[in-house]
Amino acid sequence: MPEWLYGRHAVEETLRAGRRKVFRVFVSEGAKGQKSGGGQAGRLVTIEEAAREAGVPIERAPAARLDAVTHVGHHHQGVAAEVSTFPYASLSDVVEMCRQTGPASLVLALDSIQDPQNFGTLLRSAEAVGVTAVVMLDRRQVEVTPAVVNASSGAVEHLQVCLANNLPRVIGELQEAGLWVYALQAEPGATLHTEADLRGPIALVVGSEGQGVGRLVRERCDGAIALPMRGKVESLNASVAGSIALYEALRQRM
Amino acid sequence: MPEWLYGRHAVEETLRAGRRKVFRVFVSEGAKGQKSGGGQAGRLVTIEEAAREAGVPIERAPAARLDAVTHVGHHHQGVAAEVSTFPYASLSDVVEMCRQTGPASLVLALDSIQDPQNFGTLLRSAEAVGVTAVVMLDRRQVEVTPAVVNASSGAVEHLQVCLANNLPRVIGELQEAGLWVYALQAEPGATLHTEADLRGPIALVVGSEGQGVGRLVRERCDGAIALPMRGKVESLNASVAGSIALYEALRQRM
Repeated sequence: MPEWLYGRHAVEETLRAGRRKVFRVFVSEGAKGQKSGGGQAGRLVTIEEAAREAGVPIERAPAARLDAVTHVGHHHQGVAAEVSTFPYASLSDVVEMCRQTGPASLVLALDSIQDPQNFGTLLRSAEAVGVTAVVMLDRRQVEVTPAVVNASSGAVEHLQVCLANNLPRVIGELQEAGLWVYALQAEPGATLHTEADLRGPIALVVGSEGQGVGRLVRERCDGAIALPMRGKVESLNASVAGSIALYEALRQRM
Repeated sequence: MPEWLYGRHAVEETLRAGRRKVFRVFVSEGAKGQKSGGGQAGRLVTIEEAAREAGVPIERAPAARLDAVTHVGHHHQGVAAEVSTFPYASLSDVVEMCRQTGPASLVLALDSIQDPQNFGTLLRSAEAVGVTAVVMLDRRQVEVTPAVVNASSGAVEHLQVCLANNLPRVIGELQEAGLWVYALQAEPGATLHTEADLRGPIALVVGSEGQGVGRLVRERCDGAIALPMRGKVESLNASVAGSIALYEALRQRM
């Protein structure tokens, strides 16, 4: 089933990554593409060049046409692309990647993050630190929808993402492949993220903002890490907390 | 001018902080408050108790009434509070707080972050690391609106926030008070955040996602710090990047 991605970053990174079939790109008739404009305008020129190189047809279309195919009001920023579905990795792919990456393996596992904006933001951070792969629960959870691609600023197009319907089992397989699995969870006995050893092959499990990491998932983890909280409010945005922990892992590995 | 805050965390933290006058709290007739429900339901009980303690009248109202006063659809989660305006700090208050806090001073300065969600998320992180104060440009920028209070999960109610119309001048005053001012900006010559010394009294300037820190502001800063990027995408969400830098400052100070 083809779907419509939208947003300048999302469409540009999809073309750059080259993993999906891109059937056509719509550019709004009102959208400006002069290179001298810089910023967003310069990005439009880049998209047009990338589409031409990939042999993807570009059509100028009325803004109303983009509104109609994307269903996101003006959030499409004048650019949309009809593409094939997201190319998910299988669990055996992920395990194989970890075996090849060895001690540098860093997997992000998502247990029921539900807000597409948070989900996309966290995927963007995951791509920025160079994670090996992302595993996510495929029930009750947003998948890699066009909204998530947009919120990730297109970063997810470069990521290996695996949908799993049994996260405890996934954790077991990652452990067998040599990974140490941490839940990011404020709980009694949790180790501060800066005091945990995040240098070896690890997976980091991030839960939803309201519920945290589920009990059955938590029981399979090797330990819990938590961020210090020095204020009066008890928690951080889930995608921010996950991003901070990923960057701490990167810091320890540098 | 009274305004309507909404959301369970936002209203609860406003009552806990006790800095605004709270005229009345509306609870939706459909909202559940049994303690046994836990989570969000338990929070409703907490709000009702806090309101009673503060002598604030609570009214059960139809959901449509909450929709009408908050204008945010169902995002009010069944709770709204009519309150006095946000109690901003003055620049001289902020400078005095830094003088008193001395080497532990940590100020977050925001140069034109425009998205209320990002802005609130970053304020939540700022509260969590215990910043001394937040200074924000008051032109072309979201102020502490109900949407920002909600996005901060109420954390901003515990923060000292100063509106400034001349950020370069503010930076000068912070420097006179002994602070070292860093722009969070990917630019040639920027120091990696983990290699910069963030232990002394510092201010961190975070710009908007599209434009970064403005030129006149950047010129007044003492240096620039940047986060390592190991992927194919060039930047992080602005509130995530700011949060990671704040947590790195906290790590160095622990």
